[in-house]
Order: sequence, then C-alpha cells, then structure tokens
Amino acid sequence: MPRPLARRVTVLALALAAARPAAAETRLPDDALEQAAVLRDRGLAGSAAYGIVESLTTEVGPRMAGTEADARAVAWARAKFEELGFDRVRVEPVTFPVWHRGHEQARILGDHAQPLLITALGGSVGTGGQPLEAEVVRFDSLDALMAADAASVRGKIAFIDGRMERFRDGRGYGPAVGARSNGATEAARRGARAVLIRSIGTDSDRLPHTGMMRYAEGVTQIPAAALSVPDAEQLTRVLERDRSARVRLDIDAETRGEYTSHNVIGEIVGSERPEEVVLIGGHLDSWDLGTGAVDDATGGGITMAAGKLIASLPERPRRTVRVVAFANEEQGLLGARAYARAHADAIAQHVIGAESDFGAGRIYALRGNVEPEARKALAQIAEVLTPLGIAYEGEGGGPGPDIGPMAARGMAWAQLAQDGTDYFDLHHTANDTLDKVDAEALDQQAAAYAVFAYLAAEAEGDFGSAPKSAGEED
Amino acid sequence: MPRPLARRVTVLALALAAARPAAAETRLPDDALEQAAVLRDRGLAGSAAYGIVESLTTEVGPRMAGTEADARAVAWARAKFEELGFDRVRVEPVTFPVWHRGHEQARILGDHAQPLLITALGGSVGTGGQPLEAEVVRFDSLDALMAADAASVRGKIAFIDGRMERFRDGRGYGPAVGARSNGATEAARRGARAVLIRSIGTDSDRLPHTGMMRYAEGVTQIPAAALSVPDAEQLTRVLERDRSARVRLDIDAETRGEYTSHNVIGEIVGSERPEEVVLIGGHLDSWDLGTGAVDDATGGGITMAAGKLIASLPERPRRTVRVVAFANEEQGLLGARAYARAHADAIAQHVIGAESDFGAGRIYALRGNVEPEARKALAQIAEVLTPLGIAYEGEGGGPGPDIGPMAARGMAWAQLAQDGTDYFDLHHTANDTLDKVDAEALDQQAAAYAVFAYLAAEAEGDFGSAPKSAGEED
Repeated sequence: MPRPLARRVTVLALALAAARPAAAETRLPDDALEQAAVLRDRGLAGSAAYGIVESLTTEVGPRMAGTEADARAVAWARAKFEELGFDRVRVEPVTFPVWHRGHEQARILGDHAQPLLITALGGSVGTGGQPLEAEVVRFDSLDALMAADAASVRGKIAFIDGRMERFRDGRGYGPAVGARSNGATEAARRGARAVLIRSIGTDSDRLPHTGMMRYAEGVTQIPAAALSVPDAEQLTRVLERDRSARVRLDIDAETRGEYTSHNVIGEIVGSERPEEVVLIGGHLDSWDLGTGAVDDATGGGITMAAGKLIASLPERPRRTVRVVAFANEEQGLLGARAYARAHADAIAQHVIGAESDFGAGRIYALRGNVEPEARKALAQIAEVLTPLGIAYEGEGGGPGPDIGPMAARGMAWAQLAQDGTDYFDLHHTANDTLDKVDAEALDQQAAAYAVFAYLAAEAEGDFGSAPKSAGEED
Repeated sequence: MPRPLARRVTVLALALAAARPAAAETRLPDDALEQAAVLRDRGLAGSAAYGIVESLTTEVGPRMAGTEADARAVAWARAKFEELGFDRVRVEPVTFPVWHRGHEQARILGDHAQPLLITALGGSVGTGGQPLEAEVVRFDSLDALMAADAASVRGKIAFIDGRMERFRDGRGYGPAVGARSNGATEAARRGARAVLIRSIGTDSDRLPHTGMMRYAEGVTQIPAAALSVPDAEQLTRVLERDRSARVRLDIDAETRGEYTSHNVIGEIVGSERPEEVVLIGGHLDSWDLGTGAVDDATGGGITMAAGKLIASLPERPRRTVRVVAFANEEQGLLGARAYARAHADAIAQHVIGAESDFGAGRIYALRGNVEPEARKALAQIAEVLTPLGIAYEGEGGGPGPDIGPMAARGMAWAQLAQDGTDYFDLHHTANDTLDKVDAEALDQQAAAYAVFAYLAAEAEGDFGSAPKSAGEED
C-alpha cells in the first residue's frame, strides 16, 4: 500500500517540521571555503584513492560476506585507516546467516545440446545434490510470468528474459531487478521447479551477474540462477526452434550457519564538536565472482582518501568526519542496518551523510535532502565543486543503500551522483576488477568527497537531521 | 633455420617462374564485370550470411573437433549447402587425435588467497588427477623465460605475462602466440611443473583465451593454461607483494583416441570448365568455450552466402565456385592439410583461392599473390569492390590458415583483408558469440566474396596456380 504510507509519512514529516524550532540559516565560513578549494585541488592532483582500491582488490580480492576473506577485509580496513592517519579506528559487529556458493552448471539437452553459462543468485538453494532437468518456459518479464496461467509453468524451469536499459543514473536497474529478487517466489507459486533469469546487466559478455534474491515465506524454495546476457539470447533462439527443449541445472548452494563480521570505522576527530559527525563511506564486502573493484572498493577508496586529505590539513575541522566501511551490503544492507540500530539514538548528531556505491565513474551532480535553512550551504558546497565538473541539482536523487537506514531514521543526506553509464556492465560479475578503474576519475571523486565532508564538518548550523518515528525506519 | 630455407624457396620459385611459358594477360569480360556489379549491390542489400551464422551458432553451438557437436556441424553444413541451392555437396574425411577438456581451476594460496580464472590450452595434459601446488616465477615474455637460469624455474609454475598489441590487421598475434605454442616446452626444459600464460588477446575481460599448444618430442609434458588478462595482471600484483606466493592448479585434460570428421564441400558447378575451381571458404569447427561466431561461423556464412548469390544468377559462371567448410582448423589446420593432400594433383585446376577466417569486421583491402599477367585482372576485381570501401593493395598479405597448405603447393591466392581491430578481444574465448556479429558487415563481405569468386570464375586466362615441389608444402 504505497500511497497511504506515503501520505502518512508526509503528514509526520510536516508535523516534525512544524515541531522543529525555526532555525537560522546554515553558513559556511569564508576560511573554510578557502580551505575546501585547497583540498579540492590537492585531491584532483592526486589522491590515495586508487592505491587503496588496488590494495584491497589485490591483497584481499573477492570478499563475500561470511567467507574467510571477509575477515581479511576487516583486518585490511583497520590497518588501512591507521596507515592513512585517521585519529580513531574501531569496529562494530554485524551478524548474519552465511550463504555458500558451490559448483553451478547448466546445459541445453537434445538436438541443440550446448552449455549455458550461469551463476546462482545470492540466497538461492541448490538443485539438491543432483541435476534437475526440465522443459523451459520463457517470459519477457516478471510481470509476464505473474500474468501466466500456472498450468504453463508447472513442472518447468521458468525463464525470465527481461532486458535492462542503460542510463547514466542507473535507473534501468529498479524496473529490471524484480526478476532477480522475486522471480523464484513468483515462479514457485506457479509450480516451477527452478528459475533462470537474464542477467540484470547492460553488457553483452558471457559473464552472468549474481545478486541477492529472497524467498517469500510459505513458498517452495526453488533454485534461482542468472544466465549471462548472450546465454539468455541463445536460450531464447533455441526455444524459438524447439519449444520443448530441456535444460539441465546442477547447482550447489545453501544458506548455512551464522557469521559475525564488522563495520570498520575510521574518524578524523572534530576539534570543536567531536560528537557531531559527517558520515561518508562505502561497503567493504563484495560478491565472490569479481574482486569488487567498482562494487565497492572504489567507494571505500574514495571516502578513505577524502578522509586522508582532510587529515592532511593543519587543523582538524570542527566536527568529526567518520568514514564507514560497511559490512555485508550485498546480502541485504546488513552492516548498514546494524549501524543504524547501533546509532539510533544519535540521528541528530549525524549532521549529514553521503555514500559512494556506484562504481568508478566521475561525479557530475550534487543533490541533497536537507532542511530549507541548509540549502544555501549545500549550494555553496556545490560551487566549490564546480571546477570538478559537478553541477548543483538541489533536491532529488537518493541517499544510497548503506546510509539509507540512517536516512530513513531522519539523517540529512547528500548525493554525489556518479556517471554510472557502464556500471551495470560490470556489477556483480567476474569482470568487476581493478583494470576497469580509472585513477584520475577516483581523484576527482576523492576531491569532491573531501570538499563535501570538510565543509559539512565546518558548517555553522546543521542540515536538518532529526529523529523520525520508528515506523518510518528502513 | 628460417633463413637458408627461405633462400632455397626463392631459388625454386624463380626456377619455376622461369619454367612457366609466357602467358597472355588474364582478362575479365565486360559482361562479367557488369554482372559482378549486380552481385555486389544485391549482396550489400542483404545476403544470407547472418542467417547462416545465426543458424550454425544457435543450432550446433560450440563444435570443438572430435566432440559430438563436430558431427552435428558436418550434418548442418551439408544440409545448409543443399538449402542454399548449391549444385553439388559432398564431404571428405579428416582424421585426427581427440583432445578432451575437463574441469580446470586455479587459486592463489596463502595471505592473498583468491581464485584465478584459467582455461587449459588445446593439447595440454592435465595435472594428473590431483591438484598441483607450486611457487610461481614470472617472465615478461617467452624470450625472457628462454633466457632464464633453469635454477630459477625448476619445480615452479612458469608464468609468461607477455602483452599482445592491438592492430587492425592482427599483426600483434604472431609475436605473442609463441608463449602459447611453445611455452610449455620451454618451461619444461627448465624444470617447470606447469606453465601459465597471459591470454593471447587484446581484451580486458575475465574470459581466458584458449588455443593450441604443442609439446616438443622428448620433453616432459607439463600442464599449460591461460589466465584471463585481468587475472594475469592480478597474479603479477600479488607476486609483487609476495614473491613466494603459491598457486594451486587442478586441470583435467588429455588427448585420447581418434576421430574422423569431414571437410564439407558445396559447389556452384561451372558451365564451361567445371573441373577448374575458385576456392573460397572458412572453417566449420570452433573452440569449445564460445559458439565460434567470429571464429569462424562468419567465414562459412560469408562464403556460403557468396555462393548463394552466384547461384541466383541466371547463368552459372564458366568455372566452378567451390566453398569449403574446413574441419578442425583450430587444432592444427587438419582439415586444410587433408584437403591439400587429397587435391595435390589439382593445384593448377584451383585457379585461385581466398578464405575468410578473421572475424566479422568489414573488408577494407584486396591483396593477392598472382602471376604478373593476372595483376591487371585482380585490380579490375578491386575496382568493382571500390563502392564497398575496399582498396586494391596489390601484392602482400597472406593466404590465411585454411588455404595455406594449397597456397604452399602453388595455388594462387587473394586476401580480402578484414578489419580485425576487435577480433582478438573475442578470439578463442567464451565471448565469441552471435551478439558480436553485425549483419550489415557480413553483407558487405558476402558481396565482396561473391564479386571476387564470380569474376575469378569468369576470367579468361588464369592467376598463375602451378604445382610447386613437395619440399615447399605446408
């Protein structure tokens, strides 16, 4: 029921806004603006970002939540924060069930026998220790599957062949990703034995895209896997020739046991109001197929490098700049949710947050969700960013996944919007590796985050963070 | 000893040239030139080429020599020639040993533990039913390995990390491919337990390039595999941090048994001199990782479509146009060699040959190796091709792999040079699939082959094919 909820939120927000005392306009001191320009130019001339990304993706490599590499990544992040000169480094626990990937194979049988390249979706069950063979029924989209007669699906492998469109801001992802999240549940409701989806991606490489899926309660859990885009197109062509073509799936995957990882937190401690924080960061975990370079070593690299730039100034800013390397984003924002729970009493002390989790492309816009008295300050920050090719776009955008739970509880946020044109070529695939990262683009971003975090930490007045009722939390 | 051999060949060639009677200039009749322009425009407006490529890559898919799909490919080619309206279709046997690929895995062990994506090279042995673990010693090139002290290699995995350069004409391949062909032998001579090479390719995808390798007689046969380019770069970075890093290889591969496949031959039978043939074609087999779209379904599609265009004319050309879908090119030109042996007595009757085995890119040049009296005729053919964006470049180039053995025996040849800028991004990888093929580029090529084959079949006078001594055969 999205509409009534939205209405209720609006009413609450208006009530809260009304309850807030009328605030003076937030201002940015002139010396801070000057200092920010220095940070910007220094960052653009060369930041630590690429080196950090190179270090994490090389030394740890893939670091799926709950694997031994998860622990190595946490140790890496602690050591890296120390090495970069952060004032305080600590960890906070994040506990979650562990998903295990085993072997995964698929093959078209019969007259057009040939392999299909697949990858199991995160959270999927396997085929039960033996191959599963069935006919395939194809749908153009999740909606088409949901509109189908169950008799056409029963006993078969449901194949959802929806295309994801390419946009700079990645807005093709939302309409496409339902097939991944809910395809298994909707297929199982109609009696399917397994679900195959066309990868949620914009490339044409034989590298399937993994990503999280969920089973609804009370519905049979069936195996769920993604075909690479060329394999989805191949299967479609084979089915055009032979509607009764059978596919064999052999997938070994399960959720088993529990693991405690950690959010890793590095701080540049504020000189005047250390308890007030500007929150930036990205997530530390990755999927297992690639080395998580653009998802999201870059987010960590950019925000850690921004912290280092700020730490290199002769004086600490007034407030604390807190960089968080979030645990287990990929399997359900588990680090972000744990952070929001742990800091639920400190929403107002999180003066503003911004996160980097959209690859290695340059930032082209600053947007934000701040109270009216802070809009001029946000526009001033954007002015300092203009030489970086960044435009101020006012309200709009979104907070991003890992600060989402804090934003939902009332934290003000900004979005440093990246060019994500190519992001979904690589996202959640084996191709997400360091060679796809441009060091100069990272410097532009590290410079932008340094400017943003520094000025937010120096601002006189706040951005409107205030606790919302628990009913609105993420 | 390349130099003395080359000198001997030159002397023989001069002797043969002197022995040929002075020939009249080869001419192309005006009505044939007019008809060729019709063929050109018809082909460019839409040929059968893409449909043929789609059919082979979809219905058969990967078709590695000696697999069950090899037999399906031969059946497909026979049926396709019939369907396209060729006058005569037949097969000729090609027998060879069978190489089998099984599982293949690699992993860096220790502090930077992570998987490496590899593929065994064709012809390689496996690791003997159990994983092989060893330290890695890296070389910039095969030459660097060959210059190394054996003590530095003994007991280790030799890693040859040479880069292949990108060129339109693919000339980066030759200098790079020695690491693949001879790396195992040179590594084994120095006591290595296995060899890993950086893929012979120009891409940066996590898709390793396979391809044939050979063991020299009397040298220990050690496993040989290619790392994808990003994996080679990753291994290099890990070795920079830890020179004693160990890698575990688990490769299941062997050469076992013998198989008889077939060259499949379709002919448009000549109206005046049916025993004289213009030979065009490509190879029918592919590697197992992709569906062999650009290597070499396109070669078959282009040349079969050219044959169909010629067959659609009201009259057959004077000579026979023979399209050959060669068996097992990938594992050593085995179909081409069998063809050359079977037709060794008919070199002079093969008036000229040209083959398509360089992907899906447009043709930009016509070159040829013909006797002086035929050069004007070749230039006239090129004139008809000018509207297709094809320039005449005279002598130069090479005959291509599958007509190479016939060219070595004295058959005149032409090269319709394709733009191969992106060819080695896909070559021998899982990414070699139909989605990489542009139908309009294939039409341009089918048009060019139709013009070439038709005019060569109509020419008055020949192109200089004449048997060479057996000593020069490929």
